Amino acid sequence: MNLNFYAMSDFKDLLGKVTTFIFDFDGVMTDGSVFVDANGEALRISNVKDGYALHLANKLGYNTALISGAYCPTMISRMNALGTVDVYIGEANKVERLESYMKEKGLTPDQVVYMGDDIPDMRAMKRVGVPVCPADAAPEIKEICCYVSPYGGGKGCVRDIIEQTLKVQGRWMSAEAYSW
Amino acid sequence: MNLNFYAMSDFKDLLGKVTTFIFDFDGVMTDGSVFVDANGEALRISNVKDGYALHLANKLGYNTALISGAYCPTMISRMNALGTVDVYIGEANKVERLESYMKEKGLTPDQVVYMGDDIPDMRAMKRVGVPVCPADAAPEIKEICCYVSPYGGGKGCVRDIIEQTLKVQGRWMSAEAYSW
Amino acid sequence: MNLNFYAMSDFKDLLGKVTTFIFDFDGVMTDGSVFVDANGEALRISNVKDGYALHLANKLGYNTALISGAYCPTMISRMNALGTVDVYIGEANKVERLESYMKEKGLTPDQVVYMGDDIPDMRAMKRVGVPVCPADAAPEIKEICCYVSPYGGGKGCVRDIIEQTLKVQGRWMSAEAYSW
Amino acid sequence: MNLNFYAMSDFKDLLGKVTTFIFDFDGVMTDGSVFVDANGEALRISNVKDGYALHLANKLGYNTALISGAYCPTMISRMNALGTVDVYIGEANKVERLESYMKEKGLTPDQVVYMGDDIPDMRAMKRVGVPVCPADAAPEIKEICCYVSPYGGGKGCVRDIIEQTLKVQGRWMSAEAYSW
Repeated sequence: MNLNFYAMSDFKDLLGKVTTFIFDFDGVMTDGSVFVDANGEALRISNVKDGYALHLANKLGYNTALISGAYCPTMISRMNALGTVDVYIGEANKVERLESYMKEKGLTPDQVVYMGDDIPDMRAMKRVGVPVCPADAAPEIKEICCYVSPYGGGKGCVRDIIEQTLKVQGRWMSAEAYSW
Repeated sequence: MNLNFYAMSDFKDLLGKVTTFIFDFDGVMTDGSVFVDANGEALRISNVKDGYALHLANKLGYNTALISGAYCPTMISRMNALGTVDVYIGEANKVERLESYMKEKGLTPDQVVYMGDDIPDMRAMKRVGVPVCPADAAPEIKEICCYVSPYGGGKGCVRDIIEQTLKVQGRWMSAEAYSW
Repeated sequence: MNLNFYAMSDFKDLLGKVTTFIFDFDGVMTDGSVFVDANGEALRISNVKDGYALHLANKLGYNTALISGAYCPTMISRMNALGTVDVYIGEANKVERLESYMKEKGLTPDQVVYMGDDIPDMRAMKRVGVPVCPADAAPEIKEICCYVSPYGGGKGCVRDIIEQTLKVQGRWMSAEAYSW
Repeated sequence: MNLNFYAMSDFKDLLGKVTTFIFDFDGVMTDGSVFVDANGEALRISNVKDGYALHLANKLGYNTALISGAYCPTMISRMNALGTVDVYIGEANKVERLESYMKEKGLTPDQVVYMGDDIPDMRAMKRVGVPVCPADAAPEIKEICCYVSPYGGGKGCVRDIIEQTLKVQGRWMSAEAYSW
C-alpha cells in the first residue's frame, strides 16, 4: 500500500470523513528526546501549539487516543490534561490495541487518522484509512503514508493534521477556538 | 483590524506612546516546549536575553504583565524574579483580565503592547493599540499584528519588542542597562 | 591511520563482519548537552530513534557496550532499558577498558564498530576496525574515522550505523523489527 | 575601543600571551536557556565539548574564572567538576570583581581573555586585552570584541577560544589531551 501518489486534493477528501485521531507519543507528540534521570526515564517535552489543537479536537467531540510502546506514565497526565482519556502505554502489540479500540468505538478505517513515526507503528498504521507522519519520520513510515506533514515530531505535526481536518470540516476557528 | 499594511516607520511611531507590555507565556516567553513530568506539567524554558530586557523595563518603571491560559505556578516565581509582579495564570478569559488590568492602571489602548502567539490570545490582542507576535506565531495571529518579530518564541522576541520601544524612547543603553 | 580515502563501497564491506557496537555516551547518544542541577550533573537527553535501533541490535544478539569517561550513573539505567548491559562509566582510560572487553568477548578488531566524538575517544577508536563518528565530532576524530555519519550526536548517528550494518547483513526489517 | 578592524593574524598574536580565561555563564557556557521549576530557577544546560576544553585548560595550569550576574548555585558544582574554582555568582558589579581578581592573580590586561554575551558584561570586557564573544552575542557586545566566535553560546564558543589559544601556544593535543 504505497500511497505516495495521492495528490493533496485526494488527501483533503479523505479528511472529510475523519472522526478519530490516534497518535504515537515519542517522535510525534515529542521530537524524540528522552530525558534520562536517576530513575531511568521520566521527562518528555511536548509542544503547546500541538496541545492547543488536541484540546480543541477533544472539546469538539472527536475521538482521540494515544498508543505508545514505551511505558511512561507521565504521558497519561499530560494527555488527560488535554482531554484525551484513551491513553495506552507499554503496548508491545499496537495492532491488537488499535483493533480493539476501533471495535469498541464502532469505527471504520476511513474514519481514522493514525500518526506514527517509526517502524513499531507501521503495522497498525496500515490498518487505518488515513496514515500520516511527521517530517522526520523513518523513511519506511513515510513510504506508507498518504500525507507527510511539513512539521517534525513535537514541532507542530499534531496541530497540522488536526487543523487541516477541522478546516475541511468547517470547524476551525469556531466559537470553541478562542479559549483553553 | 488587519494591520499588515503598517510600514516600519508607522510601527516606530506607535512605540513612542508605549508604557505597558503584556505577554503570553507559552510560545512567547518560551519556544512552546512543555515539560511533562510525573505530576503532569512542571518545567518551562525561558531565555536569559529576554529576561534581561524585561528586568530592565521593570527597573525603568514600565508596566509589565503576564496573562496565561495555562495554570503553571512556576511562571510566577520566574516573572517575579525579573520584576514583573502582575502575573495572571489559568486565565480562561484573557479579554476580561486585560480590561480590568487596563482599567486598574488607567491605560488607553495606544499605551499597550500585547505579545501573544496563538488563537486564545487573539481577542485580547485586538483590544490594544500595539498587538505584536513572535516569528513562529499562528498565521491567524500574524494577520492581526502590527509587527511580527524576526525572533521566535523563547528566542528573543520579548527582548526585541522591549529593545525597540526603549530605543524609540531613548532609554536603551542608559545607566540602568549595565548591570542586573 | 587516515581512513578518509575509504569509498562508501569499502565501508559497506567492512560492515559485513561486524558483531559488536561500542559507543561513547555524551556527544554520541546525546547532542552533548549536560544538565546542571543542584547536585552537579544529573540529566541527559537521548533519542528514541537511536534507542529503537540499539534495542533491536540487542534483540538480534549483537554485542553492544558503552564506554564513557563521565561518571553519570543515570546512563546505566537508560542503557539497560535498551538491552545493553555492558556499561562502563567514569573510565579514565578507554583503551584498557576496550582491550579487556574485546579479550573477554574474544573479538578481533574487524568485528568492532566504535563510535566516539571527541579526543578522549581517539586512542581506543584507533584499536578497532570500524571507527565511526557523528557529523558534529571534533575534526581530530573525523580524521581517523572510516565513516562520518550525516547525523549528529543524539540526532540519529547511533541508529544510522546500526541500520547500515543490519542492512548489509540482511537483518533490517526482519520479524523482530516491528515491536519494542 | 572598536576592535572590529583586527585581522585574524592580529588576533592570533594576541592569544600568544594569554594565561587566563574569564567566562560569563548564561549565554556563553549555555545557549541562554533558563529552566523554570517550582523553586524559580534551577537547571542550566552546558555542553560537553566546551567542558572538555575548559577541563584541559585547567589541567594545563591556565587561570579560569566564571563571573555571573545571576545567582545560580548549581553553576558552582558544574564549574568545580571541570576544575574551575574561581566561581563568582550574583555579581551585580562585574568590573569590581574582575579588577580584584586580576590584582589577586597579578594579571595584566593582555594576559586575559573575557568571553561575555550581553550588556551587563560590557564594562568588564573593556578592561581586558582580549574581549571575545559567541556568535549570538548582543550586537553591542560584538562591537567591542576583537573576535566573534562562529559558535553560539553553549554550542562550542568556549571550546573554540580555548582551542585556538592552546594551538597558538603549542599545547593542543599534548599528552594531557587524551583523557578526562
